[in-house]
Amino acid sequence: MTDSDYMARALALAARGKGYTSPNPCVGAVVVKNGQIIGQGFHAKAGGPHAEVVAIDDAAAKAPEKLADATIYVTLEPCNHFGKTPPCTHKILNAGIGRVVVACKDPNPVAGGGIDFLRGKGLAVVSGVMEQAALTLIEDFVWNVQNHHTPFVTLKCAATLDGYIATRTGDSQWITSSASRNFGHELRHQNDAILIGAGTLHGDDPSLTARIAGKQTRDPARIILDTRLTIQENAKVVVQKSSAPTIIVTGPDCDPGKIQRLKDKGAQILECRVCGNLLDLNDLMIRLRKLSITSLLIEGGGCVAASALAAGIVNKVCYFLAPKMMGGNDGIPVFNGSGPEKIKDVVELVRVTTRHFDSDMLVTGYIEA
Amino acid sequence: MTDSDYMARALALAARGKGYTSPNPCVGAVVVKNGQIIGQGFHAKAGGPHAEVVAIDDAAAKAPEKLADATIYVTLEPCNHFGKTPPCTHKILNAGIGRVVVACKDPNPVAGGGIDFLRGKGLAVVSGVMEQAALTLIEDFVWNVQNHHTPFVTLKCAATLDGYIATRTGDSQWITSSASRNFGHELRHQNDAILIGAGTLHGDDPSLTARIAGKQTRDPARIILDTRLTIQENAKVVVQKSSAPTIIVTGPDCDPGKIQRLKDKGAQILECRVCGNLLDLNDLMIRLRKLSITSLLIEGGGCVAASALAAGIVNKVCYFLAPKMMGGNDGIPVFNGSGPEKIKDVVELVRVTTRHFDSDMLVTGYIEA
Repeated sequence: MTDSDYMARALALAARGKGYTSPNPCVGAVVVKNGQIIGQGFHAKAGGPHAEVVAIDDAAAKAPEKLADATIYVTLEPCNHFGKTPPCTHKILNAGIGRVVVACKDPNPVAGGGIDFLRGKGLAVVSGVMEQAALTLIEDFVWNVQNHHTPFVTLKCAATLDGYIATRTGDSQWITSSASRNFGHELRHQNDAILIGAGTLHGDDPSLTARIAGKQTRDPARIILDTRLTIQENAKVVVQKSSAPTIIVTGPDCDPGKIQRLKDKGAQILECRVCGNLLDLNDLMIRLRKLSITSLLIEGGGCVAASALAAGIVNKVCYFLAPKMMGGNDGIPVFNGSGPEKIKDVVELVRVTTRHFDSDMLVTGYIEA
Repeated sequence: MTDSDYMARALALAARGKGYTSPNPCVGAVVVKNGQIIGQGFHAKAGGPHAEVVAIDDAAAKAPEKLADATIYVTLEPCNHFGKTPPCTHKILNAGIGRVVVACKDPNPVAGGGIDFLRGKGLAVVSGVMEQAALTLIEDFVWNVQNHHTPFVTLKCAATLDGYIATRTGDSQWITSSASRNFGHELRHQNDAILIGAGTLHGDDPSLTARIAGKQTRDPARIILDTRLTIQENAKVVVQKSSAPTIIVTGPDCDPGKIQRLKDKGAQILECRVCGNLLDLNDLMIRLRKLSITSLLIEGGGCVAASALAAGIVNKVCYFLAPKMMGGNDGIPVFNGSGPEKIKDVVELVRVTTRHFDSDMLVTGYIEA
């Protein structure tokens, strides 16, 4: 087992916390002595113990005599400040650990400095092991601490090979496989909020909850773009029980009586700037970030997806492709709006990776600013 | 090295003949003695020596003393009949080879029986090693010997993730990477003929030749769908030098003078049945097969691609996807026609595989009858 092997284990542990730790990053840690994992853990929720603490306590409970001069693998630089919990650097030092292997440095200047502190105390510290994978795992956190005033935005699409989300009659069940749809729920769970337009709302009356068999998920906040407040007062997103709020985004001059009735049912109403006939998504992103929404999943439909791309608010695209073709051009397109004149102006994805869900593909890529 | 390892080598050799051997299949062979490859070869062109003969002669020239009781790996069952060349079974027997490993049986009843013959002569014969890969490599040949009266048809598409082959202004250079476009030329080389519609002809004035750096390719025959014979008489496909013919497919009642002038320039004119305003592609496929075209690559544009899918003539789809998005619905769509009402009626690909060409993906799949 190499440093990378142990770090891969720590990253797998970290991923188990993904979706539960916001606004904190997910972090995993493994304690190793003489080639044996003697303790492991991950950060399970904001306010709870950090991964290093869980892993060291795990080792201390099972094999206290082995902690001296052990190595700890941690996916993110140990914190060196007193936040909701004491600094992990002190915990590592006091445990007698001799070597610290870190995947990526803490991008948060307030929490950083752990590596320097530990080196100053005489511990051997290696940094940068599986760094890219670690940074990708906490990409939303990295975005948020880098002084951005908007959430990390993921656009999810799910279409046929030829770019349609439904037939010309609106039939869409199902284009993608159940494995793809299950991963769609995982994406919801991983984001603070999910956003749809009024068209999808009226067409599907979705609940927009994260439903994963065998997993206690965290529902995302539900953001509904509804310029003219056309939402049915008994829509699922209004009346269902959920730990997360429903935020209805409107333009100006909507019916105050309806606004009050929706508020009485627990919905939040967010009035937002309008450009032409469309809500100003750049303005909205700033407002959502002020509501502590650090990550946002845009699910569509086609007008919202096209507007989001055009507004330049999208960081990441998760594009599910089913190996199916409409074979015509009269289906409901994945993007509904106006495209560019020239190929050089198309939206290009970088750092593209692909995964398979049954016979579907998930193409993931990033849009560079 | 296992049987599969040696067979993989034989398959790689066979692939080097792909595109040169029509109407024969491409075949590769490797002769192995005491774990060493002592001879190898592939069928390089129709009428030339078979792979087994090349491999055995190669071994005989280099290590004649080792041929006795050697093993031969061959991607297709050795032929057992006198065609343009004597039966390979006799060559194997006379060389003193002791064991024969075959990937797939010969689907051609006239040429088959080689395995039984060799077993009858006391040789050890194993069949089915890497069978699926071997059958895929010669899928066009298999289709043609299975009593089909039409060519094996591959539809090539190349589009953005959201299904467009050009922007709304028609700009299309380049959606896919140069690596993808190079493989497109490989597909041309592998097919007896390539088919486009009059729209692509007038828009691009393409030469439709197979151009691959460092490779002496075989140009495919060029099939142009041109119901009303609108082709320019100085179009590249008419005036260029090529070893392959240009076949212009028309409906009835075209200008006899223009027909004669095009014929004088070397083009062939094929009058075909028309349904509504469109050429009857099922009728055309039968006519092309009668012209000894056993494999056909359809390159588009959108009307031809949609018509081909709708006509049910497509066996295989090679769909290049660039990680780019128009982000609107006003580009030139990959399929131009009417799609289905219901998801259950979309065209579904089976046996889907993916390859990468730089950042592009090639999704390959089959349409089952």
